[in-house]
Amino acid sequence: MDTLLRVTVWNEYRHEQKPTHPASKIYPEGIHGAIAQGLHEYPGITARTATLDEPEHGLTDAVLAETDVLIWWGHGAHDEVRDEIVAKVQARVLDGMGLIVLHSAHFSKIFKRLMGTSCELKWREGDDHERIWVVEPGHPIADGLGECLEIGREEMYGERFDIPAPETLVFLSWFSGGELFRSGCCYTRGRGKIFYFRPGHESYPTYFNPDVRRVIANAARWVAPSRGPRPVFGNVRPREA
Amino acid sequence: MDTLLRVTVWNEYRHEQKPTHPASKIYPEGIHGAIAQGLHEYPGITARTATLDEPEHGLTDAVLAETDVLIWWGHGAHDEVRDEIVAKVQARVLDGMGLIVLHSAHFSKIFKRLMGTSCELKWREGDDHERIWVVEPGHPIADGLGECLEIGREEMYGERFDIPAPETLVFLSWFSGGELFRSGCCYTRGRGKIFYFRPGHESYPTYFNPDVRRVIANAARWVAPSRGPRPVFGNVRPREA
Amino acid sequence: MDTLLRVTVWNEYRHEQKPTHPASKIYPEGIHGAIAQGLHEYPGITARTATLDEPEHGLTDAVLAETDVLIWWGHGAHDEVRDEIVAKVQARVLDGMGLIVLHSAHFSKIFKRLMGTSCELKWREGDDHERIWVVEPGHPIADGLGECLEIGREEMYGERFDIPAPETLVFLSWFSGGELFRSGCCYTRGRGKIFYFRPGHESYPTYFNPDVRRVIANAARWVAPSRGPRPVFGNVRPREA
Amino acid sequence: MDTLLRVTVWNEYRHEQKPTHPASKIYPEGIHGAIAQGLHEYPGITARTATLDEPEHGLTDAVLAETDVLIWWGHGAHDEVRDEIVAKVQARVLDGMGLIVLHSAHFSKIFKRLMGTSCELKWREGDDHERIWVVEPGHPIADGLGECLEIGREEMYGERFDIPAPETLVFLSWFSGGELFRSGCCYTRGRGKIFYFRPGHESYPTYFNPDVRRVIANAARWVAPSRGPRPVFGNVRPREA
Repeated sequence: MDTLLRVTVWNEYRHEQKPTHPASKIYPEGIHGAIAQGLHEYPGITARTATLDEPEHGLTDAVLAETDVLIWWGHGAHDEVRDEIVAKVQARVLDGMGLIVLHSAHFSKIFKRLMGTSCELKWREGDDHERIWVVEPGHPIADGLGECLEIGREEMYGERFDIPAPETLVFLSWFSGGELFRSGCCYTRGRGKIFYFRPGHESYPTYFNPDVRRVIANAARWVAPSRGPRPVFGNVRPREA
Repeated sequence: MDTLLRVTVWNEYRHEQKPTHPASKIYPEGIHGAIAQGLHEYPGITARTATLDEPEHGLTDAVLAETDVLIWWGHGAHDEVRDEIVAKVQARVLDGMGLIVLHSAHFSKIFKRLMGTSCELKWREGDDHERIWVVEPGHPIADGLGECLEIGREEMYGERFDIPAPETLVFLSWFSGGELFRSGCCYTRGRGKIFYFRPGHESYPTYFNPDVRRVIANAARWVAPSRGPRPVFGNVRPREA
Repeated sequence: MDTLLRVTVWNEYRHEQKPTHPASKIYPEGIHGAIAQGLHEYPGITARTATLDEPEHGLTDAVLAETDVLIWWGHGAHDEVRDEIVAKVQARVLDGMGLIVLHSAHFSKIFKRLMGTSCELKWREGDDHERIWVVEPGHPIADGLGECLEIGREEMYGERFDIPAPETLVFLSWFSGGELFRSGCCYTRGRGKIFYFRPGHESYPTYFNPDVRRVIANAARWVAPSRGPRPVFGNVRPREA
Repeated sequence: MDTLLRVTVWNEYRHEQKPTHPASKIYPEGIHGAIAQGLHEYPGITARTATLDEPEHGLTDAVLAETDVLIWWGHGAHDEVRDEIVAKVQARVLDGMGLIVLHSAHFSKIFKRLMGTSCELKWREGDDHERIWVVEPGHPIADGLGECLEIGREEMYGERFDIPAPETLVFLSWFSGGELFRSGCCYTRGRGKIFYFRPGHESYPTYFNPDVRRVIANAARWVAPSRGPRPVFGNVRPREA
């Protein structure tokens, strides 16, 4: 890649602004800030941020046009994301923009719209330990990892996760409370590539974990747009006489 | 299966009611009528019909609750299908109801919503000959077929077809004008199974073709609900101490 | 299905014949005996058995020709299975015979040959508890199950499991020692369907577990041959002038 | 990628050495020479060659150890490839080496061993025109292509192609004689990625076609090894107390 990969990290950015919420201590520059910082540890990537309460949620046409890869974190305010912005993001994904969906963004409008399912799951805020196993070690998103990632204390997500079966399942999460989860899921929609990655509850410093940062950087490269043909749709003439 | 498989054949049913349209001659009892008739050639299946202009498009809660498999044909009036009916159909699919999407219903609201993509394609009404090749001969939907189906004159659909890659690709269509198409596509969404089948333009007697009827009957059996667990979602207690 | 589904349960049958081995107490009629007994609890299925030390390992041409579904259990004597018998089994699978591969048969010649990979994994005979989660609740193999199967004490198998990604992943196993495993894996090879199912170490009474028996019966029905076209290969004339 | 991608182009190299064979005129430096030349048009790639009649078929341990991506072309002498060399190539693929299988190498020992199926197909040397349609335009292997590749005169390959369903189907071929073919197929085996690409009969100058060269270069980059974890197999201790 000759040019920089342009990532926009979108965050709901509400928990971190409540002084009494643990996230305000863990992520003083917001979850988006921590993720963008982590991306800048990797060569060839540049990251900007956008948040819910900015005009147009920070996702103007200009920003979207200059975004190769969009990362999405949301939790409590999915319903406040305006439908016309969601439609624009979906159109950009279908046209090739990469999308990384993190943790509780499984319930975001954009993910549910692209999946076509409820994206429901089991969850628990408790004492769980999470260990992420690499099940597809040859996949570029597993580049540089060990055979598992010891995440430590995290919110539990458990199956059944109501998603279409991933085209490639890269990671599985084990939780000490007895559940497991498909935690690294690859999809293609239109010309766009999508990666769902499970960890990252706002009450834990997950996005400072070097392995988690590596996964997000690897994923940014993997979902990056390629320059394949823009499809021609509609009425066409025959190619043969 | 001890009991009858209950199929509802839904049709937009507009072309056939225009006296000047060829469909009025080819399908005097409607496309839905022809499809339901074809299903009744197969043991263990019973078929009813529903159409756009009936109250609630013929898809009341009672009808949906009694439907194991819904077949959908639409073309020119997709926008007239009410969103709340589409939402009910989607919910039923996620809960296990089978769905067969035929021909121009690639552009139906329900299919686009379940796929998450534009579902665009190339098309041409011309002199094309269609031949459907079986590429997955061990799949139940290919039961009883030869290695290809000579469909004859049909509307052409060509790639790129903007769908998620099918979980199983059973059929491919060859067109004499130089195009080809993924014409038999299997999906799972929630607990429901979906089959897209390409042929069936309203100006051709495709739904009287015995091979086409066999595919639709096979597909009805394949998408039929199974009795797997209804998932438990939401907050849960740990299973381990 | 009008006629009985004819299953042959193949077992290495060595552990159970050693009087000092726990398997001799748990499976006095052999693992194959227990599995066949379990299948007979389900209508429409008839099961015979075959074992390694019979002539031709009990898999004569006549037996294979009359077998719709072959179930394979092996552990310590994979190398004693003769290559020409393996070749015949592979040919039958490609022609449509179903195959269910159980537990340590992940390392059988027939499974490795059909997968093309090493089929290696992690393992431990210890104090692990196994819980199998249903991740694809709409799949016919999950019919009649709850959301998870409490297997209890079992040998642990852990990822990375060196298999091609399954076409459908139906089950995942959680182990108390910290590992997880893709434990219900569907494949198609030729016209044949294959299901790998993890549990069943010889030192545990796993094949008397009603849920395990249900899975094996469901799988036998799912891998059963369909009557799709037998492919035509080789030199052919054009279909178009 | 900081360092050069090291490709080895393997060729049976028999047709081109027969003075009366058209291939001797079309490929005076061998099919391998044309492919290697094509790769050198792309930055970041270096290509060497190896042929059947060299000692160890040119695939010594040293050569394999220095090969990131192996390209394989064979046709009439598959049986002359020694099994121990095939075993070494398979082991390297499972350990991460990329593999590109071209045209009639669908019948090579290495491809059949990695697929587990017969890899049979239909074929015809005649007057067919081949057109390759891009069905997955967002895939990196489609980078820089138009919506279809007009290959022109080529040998026909037709379905049923007896392979496991590809993990990603990138291309489909249309033939004027009435057949079609899955002509760009992606697989993962172990940590290795595999791409099968259809065109390239020895009697046509296919490997001088700029689009074909682009596909092969794109594929070399896509199958290139990543640096994911080398799996740990065998007996392990629990990670939890």
